[in-house]
Amino acid sequence: MKLLIEKNKLLESLNPVSRALSTRNIIPVLNGIKFELKKEGLYLTATDNDITIQSFIDKKNIKSIDEIGCSIVYGKTLLEIIKRLPDTDILIENYESNEISFKTNTASYNFNCFAIEDFPNIKLDDMKDPIILSSIKFKEVINKTSFACSVQESRPLLTGVNIKIQGDLFECTATDSYRLSKVSININKTIQNNINIVIPARNINEFAKTIEEDCEMEMYVFNNKVIFKNNNLIFQTSLLNGNYPNTDNSIAKEFKYIVKANLKDLFNTLDRASLLTQSKDKNIIDVEINKNYLTIKATNIEMGKVEEKIEIENETNNSIKISFSAKYMLEALKMFNNEYVYLLLNGEINPIVLREIDNKELTELILPMKTY
Amino acid sequence: MKLLIEKNKLLESLNPVSRALSTRNIIPVLNGIKFELKKEGLYLTATDNDITIQSFIDKKNIKSIDEIGCSIVYGKTLLEIIKRLPDTDILIENYESNEISFKTNTASYNFNCFAIEDFPNIKLDDMKDPIILSSIKFKEVINKTSFACSVQESRPLLTGVNIKIQGDLFECTATDSYRLSKVSININKTIQNNINIVIPARNINEFAKTIEEDCEMEMYVFNNKVIFKNNNLIFQTSLLNGNYPNTDNSIAKEFKYIVKANLKDLFNTLDRASLLTQSKDKNIIDVEINKNYLTIKATNIEMGKVEEKIEIENETNNSIKISFSAKYMLEALKMFNNEYVYLLLNGEINPIVLREIDNKELTELILPMKTY
Repeated sequence: MKLLIEKNKLLESLNPVSRALSTRNIIPVLNGIKFELKKEGLYLTATDNDITIQSFIDKKNIKSIDEIGCSIVYGKTLLEIIKRLPDTDILIENYESNEISFKTNTASYNFNCFAIEDFPNIKLDDMKDPIILSSIKFKEVINKTSFACSVQESRPLLTGVNIKIQGDLFECTATDSYRLSKVSININKTIQNNINIVIPARNINEFAKTIEEDCEMEMYVFNNKVIFKNNNLIFQTSLLNGNYPNTDNSIAKEFKYIVKANLKDLFNTLDRASLLTQSKDKNIIDVEINKNYLTIKATNIEMGKVEEKIEIENETNNSIKISFSAKYMLEALKMFNNEYVYLLLNGEINPIVLREIDNKELTELILPMKTY
Repeated sequence: MKLLIEKNKLLESLNPVSRALSTRNIIPVLNGIKFELKKEGLYLTATDNDITIQSFIDKKNIKSIDEIGCSIVYGKTLLEIIKRLPDTDILIENYESNEISFKTNTASYNFNCFAIEDFPNIKLDDMKDPIILSSIKFKEVINKTSFACSVQESRPLLTGVNIKIQGDLFECTATDSYRLSKVSININKTIQNNINIVIPARNINEFAKTIEEDCEMEMYVFNNKVIFKNNNLIFQTSLLNGNYPNTDNSIAKEFKYIVKANLKDLFNTLDRASLLTQSKDKNIIDVEINKNYLTIKATNIEMGKVEEKIEIENETNNSIKISFSAKYMLEALKMFNNEYVYLLLNGEINPIVLREIDNKELTELILPMKTY
């Protein structure tokens, strides 16, 4: 292998690929990034055996390709070194397969390589019938849902994000059984076969981080894996097996209590008051809605107590007292961007639903807590 | 106690005082900030029994003082709540001594208080014969030296910063016995009695963080403590007992090797190359100075090796090979701001001295390491 490439062209590809590098280091070769130089360009691949990321640099973005070949290099160290290099051309050259050098005018970095045969053999071909999505919209959908996933391995399915596609309706849901976050959007092209998969949240979050600009992204669903193809990047992850709980009925269609609140006011007040809840785990806030005021109360037995009120629009003009986790409510409110947010209730033991004004794409749901 | 004060006036004083709050929480009352309202204004005090910080808000910065009094409030929680309040007036009022309320138009925070008699009795008076220093210059001196202190409790004196004042010469030194950082400046007024004290690095760093604008700061040295008075802030810390090692002779006056290097080039090259040293602890870099080039070499047995060179001005035109800790050299180089830095050597087993061009205020010293 021998090629000459600009530092920044190499870095742009190394950066996303390095997200697949294993952090646990049980199998040494999974610390490596595979450099595969072919006539058409350079393929960089990393995998932790659960996710695989491959990036392709087309030959038109390579200054010269002198000899095709393959090597596997310590990924994280290489990335940190390339990041720290000044803007310069880099000559990459391997000697047999066990040593590779990265040279600039003044620097020479020689890496020992992993044996090529130790690297997992990953098939990224056989891709047909893509579902087309806007990459930036997809990133937004993942960011607005995945935070609600469970982190407890006792119910493994809930550690994933559920993606359902029926016709042109694309639904993404995450829940830890105490709260739920759901985004429903329409895609441009109706699909023939319904899709219902669960992607590990950790994996799909890593992929979302690689998305920077808006493109038409391709999604390919297989039996036990899903592949996303975004520009010159291919991302593959395993799926979680099992039937994701049907959450359609948990979100009520009609509400007895409809309250419109200023998002920042509500967020900031809860944020302050939550400092006087009992603890990080037991962070229960009591809320009372009465006429055009929402009153927030919290108590920490050791330190003291708080009572704050904010003005609201009480569209149904009903009064109610309800308690919930301040942490969950704050995390849910963070997903909204509008000036106002709707609090939709049906009673003190029914789920609290949050929606934007004039936009039903995003639904946040939180179970109330009984304090009596 | 009853007073009305603007949020920001209170926050400006709470912020620095909270730095003295104990993080270890063995004695509950050390989680508290003492509010002491007198006719002349509000005193806020916190202590961890090692450092004490007191801030004073003059009555002209308080909207109304209705009743003088005293209370001790959970400091960290109060600070976080006050930070999160919008710009507003706060009515502070205590009921007997065991409860205090902070009220705005819409919010009411009630805190349980600590018993006043549990709070350490700290004397901050009896201050005379101040040494006058520029506060910003003092902060710079501390920031440029304290990083070199030892973190090992086995030689407790080296965990402190040594301040020596003789006449108008102010010297600040820190060393962990492998490297040394020293700043020498002149103060405006000659002092009569020589001063030679050692301040715990952790403590003086906390004080340095409270300094934001340049003022004439007063320093008062006592037998077992030192007090700084900066604007409306008083900072007191204990001293370390013992004779700080005399380091005057460790810095040579003349050098056989004088090398002028571009600071950024040298730093960036070492920073990259250090990624291929053996480990974080054994991060030895080999340097070779030959004619107008400085060559840097490092090896990691597992991963590979690097050789980089940068252009230098070799003023003595001598050649030398020397090895040292990349981490220590990088930390020392960070203290300089000029475009160029001098590397001053006397041989491969003599200390490496770093200085700025045309500025002898700051001296950095690093012991070389033998690699044979």
